[in-house]
Amino acid sequence: MSPLKSWLRIPPHSDFSILNIPFGIITSRHSQGTRRPAIRIGDHVLDLLAFSRSSGFHKLPSFKDHVSVFEEPTLNAFAALGQPLHGAVRKYIQDILREDTQYPELLRDNEEVQKECLLQVVDCKNHLPMSIGDYTDFFAGINHARNVGVMFRGPENALQPNYTHVPIGYHGRASTVVVSGTQVTRPNGQIILDPKAPGSKKPIFGPSRRLDFELELGCFLCTGNELGEPIRVTEAAQNIFGYVLMNDWSARDIQSWEYVPLGPFNAKNFATTVSPWVVLQGAMAPFRTAKLETETSKSGDLLDYLREESHATGLDIRLEIDLTTPDGSTTTIGQVNARNLIWSFEQMLAHHSSGGCSMRTGDLLGSGTISGETDREMGSLLEMSWGGSREVGLVGMEVRRFLKDGDEVTLRGTCGDEKGGKVGFGECRGKVISAVPY
Amino acid sequence: MSPLKSWLRIPPHSDFSILNIPFGIITSRHSQGTRRPAIRIGDHVLDLLAFSRSSGFHKLPSFKDHVSVFEEPTLNAFAALGQPLHGAVRKYIQDILREDTQYPELLRDNEEVQKECLLQVVDCKNHLPMSIGDYTDFFAGINHARNVGVMFRGPENALQPNYTHVPIGYHGRASTVVVSGTQVTRPNGQIILDPKAPGSKKPIFGPSRRLDFELELGCFLCTGNELGEPIRVTEAAQNIFGYVLMNDWSARDIQSWEYVPLGPFNAKNFATTVSPWVVLQGAMAPFRTAKLETETSKSGDLLDYLREESHATGLDIRLEIDLTTPDGSTTTIGQVNARNLIWSFEQMLAHHSSGGCSMRTGDLLGSGTISGETDREMGSLLEMSWGGSREVGLVGMEVRRFLKDGDEVTLRGTCGDEKGGKVGFGECRGKVISAVPY
Repeated sequence: MSPLKSWLRIPPHSDFSILNIPFGIITSRHSQGTRRPAIRIGDHVLDLLAFSRSSGFHKLPSFKDHVSVFEEPTLNAFAALGQPLHGAVRKYIQDILREDTQYPELLRDNEEVQKECLLQVVDCKNHLPMSIGDYTDFFAGINHARNVGVMFRGPENALQPNYTHVPIGYHGRASTVVVSGTQVTRPNGQIILDPKAPGSKKPIFGPSRRLDFELELGCFLCTGNELGEPIRVTEAAQNIFGYVLMNDWSARDIQSWEYVPLGPFNAKNFATTVSPWVVLQGAMAPFRTAKLETETSKSGDLLDYLREESHATGLDIRLEIDLTTPDGSTTTIGQVNARNLIWSFEQMLAHHSSGGCSMRTGDLLGSGTISGETDREMGSLLEMSWGGSREVGLVGMEVRRFLKDGDEVTLRGTCGDEKGGKVGFGECRGKVISAVPY
Repeated sequence: MSPLKSWLRIPPHSDFSILNIPFGIITSRHSQGTRRPAIRIGDHVLDLLAFSRSSGFHKLPSFKDHVSVFEEPTLNAFAALGQPLHGAVRKYIQDILREDTQYPELLRDNEEVQKECLLQVVDCKNHLPMSIGDYTDFFAGINHARNVGVMFRGPENALQPNYTHVPIGYHGRASTVVVSGTQVTRPNGQIILDPKAPGSKKPIFGPSRRLDFELELGCFLCTGNELGEPIRVTEAAQNIFGYVLMNDWSARDIQSWEYVPLGPFNAKNFATTVSPWVVLQGAMAPFRTAKLETETSKSGDLLDYLREESHATGLDIRLEIDLTTPDGSTTTIGQVNARNLIWSFEQMLAHHSSGGCSMRTGDLLGSGTISGETDREMGSLLEMSWGGSREVGLVGMEVRRFLKDGDEVTLRGTCGDEKGGKVGFGECRGKVISAVPY
């Protein structure tokens, strides 16, 4: 099957081919500062509010009574319409953009509408795509869980007994989820300077010395459930709006002191960065792949409420981590595939709601850090530097164990190829700035 | 100082004397189903939207341009105005309600306005007072932390080394905070039926057999901080809107299997109940008291960022737990004072934001379970039944180790007395209903 072609010039290497059509929130010169929904195509952005006002959607009967969702400053109202309409709108926009469009008058041959609606990406600023009610971070990357377990408990007890049975997760902080490009202030916190020294421990308070990133996938929900009425695993897919890249910034020294017994708190809640363009559930359909098997899934011990009809509910996404030092040189320090997860987002969602917890439009689920099996496939500096015990080499003479002020971390993710059509996530980027003086 | 007297008959035992004036959200026959702000006074409710429409606030110049906050279905807009205006509005309402009111024409002597605005509490239904951005639960009840620690790790290691240094907390689930009176569905979840049996563990999935309540105080924020700009402990008090009672329902069997290594998740996120009337920071001022001292606070080892100007930042509230069984008989199973906390909410807030985490209007902080030192002062069934090892006697022949379907838990809290004027919280109530079949 040859990919769709667009009348718009799309660079062949672009993450945003006509097969993608991800949704986001922008401001631009045209928008007079108001945030509005948009889609990304190549190096262009289609302003969906302006396009709907130009009667751009009047050939889509199922949607034309809902165009007011594009008056909103987030994607929540659009998401809440549900997957059938997301699919219809995405396909309709593809129809508008394809070379042999049926509706040339709506955009291709309409200079006035193009001028109003079709923007250069460099003229736009991205904002958080959704208003996030609750954010939950899972721990589904088994290689990461094993690496961290080996570091802290040795190879014998690396994975906890619950790990392959329960989709382990914890509630994160919704207020500090920020969009790519937002600077990240190094957190101050309580730190034990020499954790291995004998005797009673006294913390100091100051800037984290072990600031780290975590490479994750994020998943936004379009619809949810009433309190007390779980989402079944077989129905969970329809509640997923789409996916983003996510950097779950972590202060390892704050974490190791605070996390017993209730889990990570200030070590994680200072910032979580997401990429701006939400790749819809439908756009990811061709890139589904088998998840990693575990002893529990292989032995048939997986509990029924987590059992999916297909095992191919993983996601085949090539992920990459770039570290740019203050001198401007960039090193790709990790490359790993998103298939290194033992739970699908559908299973995470079924588990999350299995006790009756209500999920809402705009909720964000994180996958947990994604690492592969080799040293080149690690999703955090904690793993790359093996708990800070070894240096990670960068371009030139620089090395890192953890992040320095001025370092910028950029995550990327891509599916498919130029021949068949790429579906990618663009960048999830954040630069570390120095801690606030206390 | 004799208490203020009202022209309205207020039952002498009422939690809602003229000294209180707590804020909430109601619907009533008058409201045509729309939620609106109100205050509670004795057995009456003053509908603030109706009162503002009757020009009730036109004698309060500092507020009269802000009355549109009472058009909102939550208290967030009112809260965001900040403490000076909360104080002014509360005092003005006291002025309107006092026997010797300066403005008799606004309510006391105005039958028409009374008919519109002054409702019987039995004719009103309460709703969640605020739209909650994020909910965080702390662990500041040292007797509870010690009891649970003794049960799980023995008396030698009951408290973790970090406990008296860090205000331990974790992020909870905002979507499942519900108002008093909402039924609580027993959660299903992964459970190890016999945790002490040797050999590898296999969970089952089913209704929790160890459903529990937790007696806590909740604290709503009125204002917050920008990302990266911490709230200092000396300024934290002004960000607190007010207080409620809170029941942090907990499924102990789900908790003990899932909580390693990231903390409680489905064991807690199925429901958290709050009392409907927010007792403002100003109303609690007379009931401030010393907090519990710890080794860290006594030795001067407390870190500067947590050091308060006064040690009297605790809250002197008499708390009570009633358990009503399906046959309708009620036993008071616990009585404890809220002063059994080692951190003030101001310290919790300073700690929470110390790494730069942004706090927002409507955020909810929980104190953690409040227990005293004796068996009659325990804030959970886990403690009363000592991990389920002994029966808790109820009125009649009934006993409990954990909650049964049909049990109703009611929390109450009161400050002051009838002579000086009571300031109380009313009820925080929830009934357990049976689990959803899977």
